[in-house]
Amino acid sequence: MGFENIPNIDKDRESLRSLSYEQIDTLCEDIRHLLIETLSRNGGHLAPNLGVVELTIAMHRVFDSPVDQFVFDVGHQCYTHKLLTGRADRFDTIRTEGGLAGFPKPSESVHDPIVTGHSSTSISVACGLARAKRLKGEEGTVVAVIGDGALTGGLAYEGLNNAGQARDNIIVILNDNRMSISKNVGAMARHLAVIRSKKSYVKAKSLTSKIVGGIPLVGKPMRRAMFRSKSALKNAVYKNTLFDALGFAYLGPVDGHNVKQLEQVLSLAKSIKRPALVHVCTSKGKGYSYAERNPGKFHGIGKFDIDTGEPISGGASYSSVFGKALCDLAADDESVCAVTAAMKTGTGLSDFAANYHRRFHDCGIAEEHAVSYCAGLAAGGMKPVFAVYASFIQRCYDQIIHDVAIQGLNVTFAIDRAGVVGEDGETHHGLFDVAMLNTVPGMSIYSPCYFDELTGALEMCVNEPSPAAIRYPRGSEPVKPDSFTSSVESWCIYGDSDSDTIIVTYGRIFGAAAKVCDRLRSEGKKACVVKLLRIKPIDKETVSFVSKGRNVFFFEEGIRQGGIGETFISLLEEYGFNGSYTLRAVDNTFVTHA
Amino acid sequence: MGFENIPNIDKDRESLRSLSYEQIDTLCEDIRHLLIETLSRNGGHLAPNLGVVELTIAMHRVFDSPVDQFVFDVGHQCYTHKLLTGRADRFDTIRTEGGLAGFPKPSESVHDPIVTGHSSTSISVACGLARAKRLKGEEGTVVAVIGDGALTGGLAYEGLNNAGQARDNIIVILNDNRMSISKNVGAMARHLAVIRSKKSYVKAKSLTSKIVGGIPLVGKPMRRAMFRSKSALKNAVYKNTLFDALGFAYLGPVDGHNVKQLEQVLSLAKSIKRPALVHVCTSKGKGYSYAERNPGKFHGIGKFDIDTGEPISGGASYSSVFGKALCDLAADDESVCAVTAAMKTGTGLSDFAANYHRRFHDCGIAEEHAVSYCAGLAAGGMKPVFAVYASFIQRCYDQIIHDVAIQGLNVTFAIDRAGVVGEDGETHHGLFDVAMLNTVPGMSIYSPCYFDELTGALEMCVNEPSPAAIRYPRGSEPVKPDSFTSSVESWCIYGDSDSDTIIVTYGRIFGAAAKVCDRLRSEGKKACVVKLLRIKPIDKETVSFVSKGRNVFFFEEGIRQGGIGETFISLLEEYGFNGSYTLRAVDNTFVTHA
Repeated sequence: MGFENIPNIDKDRESLRSLSYEQIDTLCEDIRHLLIETLSRNGGHLAPNLGVVELTIAMHRVFDSPVDQFVFDVGHQCYTHKLLTGRADRFDTIRTEGGLAGFPKPSESVHDPIVTGHSSTSISVACGLARAKRLKGEEGTVVAVIGDGALTGGLAYEGLNNAGQARDNIIVILNDNRMSISKNVGAMARHLAVIRSKKSYVKAKSLTSKIVGGIPLVGKPMRRAMFRSKSALKNAVYKNTLFDALGFAYLGPVDGHNVKQLEQVLSLAKSIKRPALVHVCTSKGKGYSYAERNPGKFHGIGKFDIDTGEPISGGASYSSVFGKALCDLAADDESVCAVTAAMKTGTGLSDFAANYHRRFHDCGIAEEHAVSYCAGLAAGGMKPVFAVYASFIQRCYDQIIHDVAIQGLNVTFAIDRAGVVGEDGETHHGLFDVAMLNTVPGMSIYSPCYFDELTGALEMCVNEPSPAAIRYPRGSEPVKPDSFTSSVESWCIYGDSDSDTIIVTYGRIFGAAAKVCDRLRSEGKKACVVKLLRIKPIDKETVSFVSKGRNVFFFEEGIRQGGIGETFISLLEEYGFNGSYTLRAVDNTFVTHA
Repeated sequence: MGFENIPNIDKDRESLRSLSYEQIDTLCEDIRHLLIETLSRNGGHLAPNLGVVELTIAMHRVFDSPVDQFVFDVGHQCYTHKLLTGRADRFDTIRTEGGLAGFPKPSESVHDPIVTGHSSTSISVACGLARAKRLKGEEGTVVAVIGDGALTGGLAYEGLNNAGQARDNIIVILNDNRMSISKNVGAMARHLAVIRSKKSYVKAKSLTSKIVGGIPLVGKPMRRAMFRSKSALKNAVYKNTLFDALGFAYLGPVDGHNVKQLEQVLSLAKSIKRPALVHVCTSKGKGYSYAERNPGKFHGIGKFDIDTGEPISGGASYSSVFGKALCDLAADDESVCAVTAAMKTGTGLSDFAANYHRRFHDCGIAEEHAVSYCAGLAAGGMKPVFAVYASFIQRCYDQIIHDVAIQGLNVTFAIDRAGVVGEDGETHHGLFDVAMLNTVPGMSIYSPCYFDELTGALEMCVNEPSPAAIRYPRGSEPVKPDSFTSSVESWCIYGDSDSDTIIVTYGRIFGAAAKVCDRLRSEGKKACVVKLLRIKPIDKETVSFVSKGRNVFFFEEGIRQGGIGETFISLLEEYGFNGSYTLRAVDNTFVTHA
C-alpha cells in the first residue's frame, strides 16, 4: 500500500470530508499499514501515531486547517496529520537527512503553526495563537492535542489555568491513553481513571452522543443556545471534573477510535464560544499487535522487524550500563535514590525500579518537580540521582540553581542522550546541557567517553557532597584506541606529552580526536590529545600543561557560546598562553535532524 | 516594643504553647509592631509577613520544628518563623550585610530545612523531605506553606500531582489572600473564590469547627477512625474541590487570623495519615492600615515612613522608563503586546495594562507559560514583549530555546533587575541571565546602561524579526560621565582610541570602568573603555579593535562561566590577539545579600 489513496487536504479540503465512513475505515487501515511499514525502516514514534489515526482524520473533517490551527503536544504524534496535509508522497523520507522531520515544522507546511518536540507546551502556545487571532480579528479555532502523559507537566497546567480564564477559541483535546512513555503516574492520572470509570460519566457520554447525534451539522445557534441553557446535558457533561474547576467546558469521554463520535463531539466543542476540553480515549499502538501489547517499547523505536516486532539493533548502551552501575551503588548504600521524569526505561532504570522500589520515584513528565524533589531528598540526607535526557534538563535550570546549587546539596544529574542524537532533530539534541550547567556555581560535570569511565565517574558524583552531573551519549560504546587505557582521573594525555600540537576534548568525540592525533603521528609529527573527564571545574594542571602548547585545538560536541572551550581559553590566558587556539563547536545555530 | 517578649521555641518548645489565647493576641500585636518598625528601616516583604502572624504561631503550637519541618514557599513570609525560632534578638539586622537573610536559610537555623526564594517549589521540596523521613524511618510531618499566587505556577501543580499520590506525611497549607503581588489571576483563582463563597463550604467550615472543636487534643485514633469512616464530616469537607480530585484531604476554608481555629484544623490535618490541604484565608498586610489598603505596594518595599506609609526613595527607575517606552511603541504599532508573570507593577507595566488592556496579559507566576504563550503570539504575527526579572527568567530556559529560538520567533525579553539586587540575596540576584541567554542560538542581547539606551535598544528588539533580549538593572539611572554621549550603536569607545590599555564592559558598571579610565588618563596614561550595548552577537569590528590592545580588562556583573567575557576572549583569539587578558566577573560562586 502506498500513499496514492491518501487525501491531500492542502490541495482539496473536501477530499477527506467527502469520504463515507466505510471509506474512512479503509483509509485508517491504509494509513496504519503505511506507518508500520515506513517506521520499520526509518524508526520513529510508532505507538503514539497508531493511536491517533482516527482522531486526526476527525479533526481534519471538522476543522479547516490552516485557518483552524492544530498544535500537537510533544509533536511526535503528527504523522497522520503530515500524511493528510500534502506530505504523503515524501513520507518515506521521514527522519532521514533532507527528508520530512519527525515533528511539526512550520518551514515544512503551513499546516504546522509551530515547532513542538518537548512536552506540555501545546496549551500555552494555543493560547498565544488564539489571542493573536482575536487581536487581528481573524477567524478560526486553535486546537491543542495533548496526551494524559503531557498533562503531568506543570506547563500544561499553567496553560489550562490561563486558557480557562480567557474567552479565546481554544479546544484542548485530551488524548487519554493512560500512558506517558511508560504507564502514567500521579494524582491526575488517577482522576482521569475515575472519570473514565464512573457511571455518571458513562451516562454523560451516551447522553452527549445521543443529543449531539441528533443535531444536524449546521445549526450552530441552536447548539449554542442549548449550551447556554441550564439543560440536563450541560449539567450532566460539565460537572465534577478538575477541568470544569479550571474553567473548561468538559466534553467526554469519547471513543477515540470512532470517527463519527469524534466528529460529533468536536463539532460541538467548535460551536461553544468558550474554552472546551474534549476527553478522548485511545489505545496507544492501536492496530499493530506488538505495539498494542507493549506500547512503551514501541513509543519511539528504531528499525524493527514487522513480523516479529523485534528491534534491529543490539548490544549494551550507556543507559543500561548506567542503570546497572546505579543498582550496584544502591546495593551498598541505602541512601542512594533514583528519580526519573517518565523515562524509566529510556534512562535504564527498570531494574532499579524493580529492585529498589521504595527508593525509586517516577515523577511523570515533570522535570522541575523532579529536581526540587531531589533537593528535598538531599536536604533530608539521601543521595538522589536524577536520570534525565540532556535535552529535557533544559527544563530545570532554575531549580538546579535555586533549589540545589545555592545550598550545595548532593544531587547527581545523570544526563543521557548528551550530544547529537540523530533522527529526532533540533528539539532533541543534547547540545546545551554543558553550557547550561557550566554556569552553575559549585557544580561538577563529568563527561565520560567509555563505559568504565561512566561507572567510575558515577560513583564519584554520588559520593561528592555537592551537586554533580555526569553526561553520556545515546547508544553503544565506541571502540577504544589500542594504546588507550581509561581511568577516572579528571584528565589524561593520549599521544606525545612533549608535543606542541594539542587537541583538547571530552566525551564521545575523543575517538575522532585520537584518530587525528594518530594520523599526525604517523606522518612523523608530534601530537597529543588532552582528554577531559571532569569538564567543570577544569583542573589547574590541565591548563598549565596545555598552556605550553603552540597550536591548541578544542573540539566540543555542544554549543560554543558558554561552553567549555570558551571557559578553557579564558583559563589558558591566565597561564600566559602564547600559542594559537582554535575552537570547533556548534556555533550559534541549531542542528537539524539526521 | 522589642524582642524580649517573643518566645524562643528553639530554647524551650513549650514557651509558645503555654500562652493563653489572650497572651497570643498580645504576642501577635507585638510581632506586628516589630515587623512594621524594623521593615520601615530595613525594607522587606511587609504585607506577606503581616498576613501570616497567627498562622505561623498556630503552626509552631501544633507542630514540633525541627522534627516537623516547615517549607515556606517563596520564603519571604518567614519573618514570624524567624522571630519564634531564636532569631528575634538579631531581627534588627534582617536584610543587612552580615545580618539575617530575608529568606529561609539552613545555615542560619535548623528550623529552616531548605532555601526558598523563588515561587512554587515548596510542595515538591516537601515531598522530597517527607520521603527522606520515611526512607530513614524518622518521625515528623512536613508542612508546605504556599500562597494562592504561587499556586499559579506549574511546579506547584507538579508537586500536588505527585504528593497527592504519595502516602507521605505532607500537609499543604494554602495561604489564600487572593493576591500574587498584584491581584491573583487565572482559573484557579476563580475556583478558590467559588470555594470561599459557596454556602456548602461555609457549612463545611462551621461543621469542621464544631466537630473538631469537640475533640480533645489527644485522642488521635478516634479522629483517624472518624476520617476513615464515611461520616457526614468527611463528605462535607472533602468533596468537590480540585484538591480532592488531586488526592488531597481538603480541609477548610478557615479564618487565618483565628489562632484557635487554625490550631484545630492543623491538628486534624496532622492526625490524618494521608496528604492534606488546609485552606486558610488571610488578609495580606493585616494590622497596618496602609498595607491592608494597598498590599501590592507593601508586598516588598524599601524603607518607608510608618506614619504616612510613603516609601523613602524616588525618581524614575529603569522599570518606569521601560514601561513608558513600551507604551510609546504600542501606540504606533498595534502588534506590540506585553506579557508579565505576576509582575505588572514591578516591571513598570501598569500604564500599559491600563491603556492597552487587550494587548496586555498577566499569566500569574508562570514564567514557562508566559514564554510559550509569547511564542504562540509571535507565530500568530504579533510582537510580544515578556517583561520579567532576571532571576526568574532562569525558569524558562527550555521554552526560550524550544518554543522561541528554534523557529527564530520575534519575542522580546525585557529583563529587569539584571545584576546584583542587594538585600534580597542569593535567590534574587540577576547574575545568570546573560550566561544563560548567551547559549541560545540566534538570540540578540542588549545591555543598556542609561535610560536613552534602554529606550532605543527596546525599539530595536521589538522590531528585530528574531528573538532578542534587553536587560537592565534595578533602580535609578547612574550619572553619565561628562564627556560621554549615549547612542544605540552596538558598541562605542570612551577615552583614547589609540590606547594599548582597553577595558571592555557593558551595562551598569560602565560608570565604574569610565572612572578607572579617567584616573589612568589623569595620571598621563592612555586608556579607553570599549562599551558594549549589544553583547550578543558581538560585533566583529569590536573584536578587531580590541585585538590590537596590549592590556585588555573585561569587567562583567554576572557569572564568569559561560559569560560574555569568556566568549569575547575566544573571539579575540581568532583575531590573533597577542596581549594579556584579565577577566573580572562572579567566579563560580553565589553572592549573598547586601
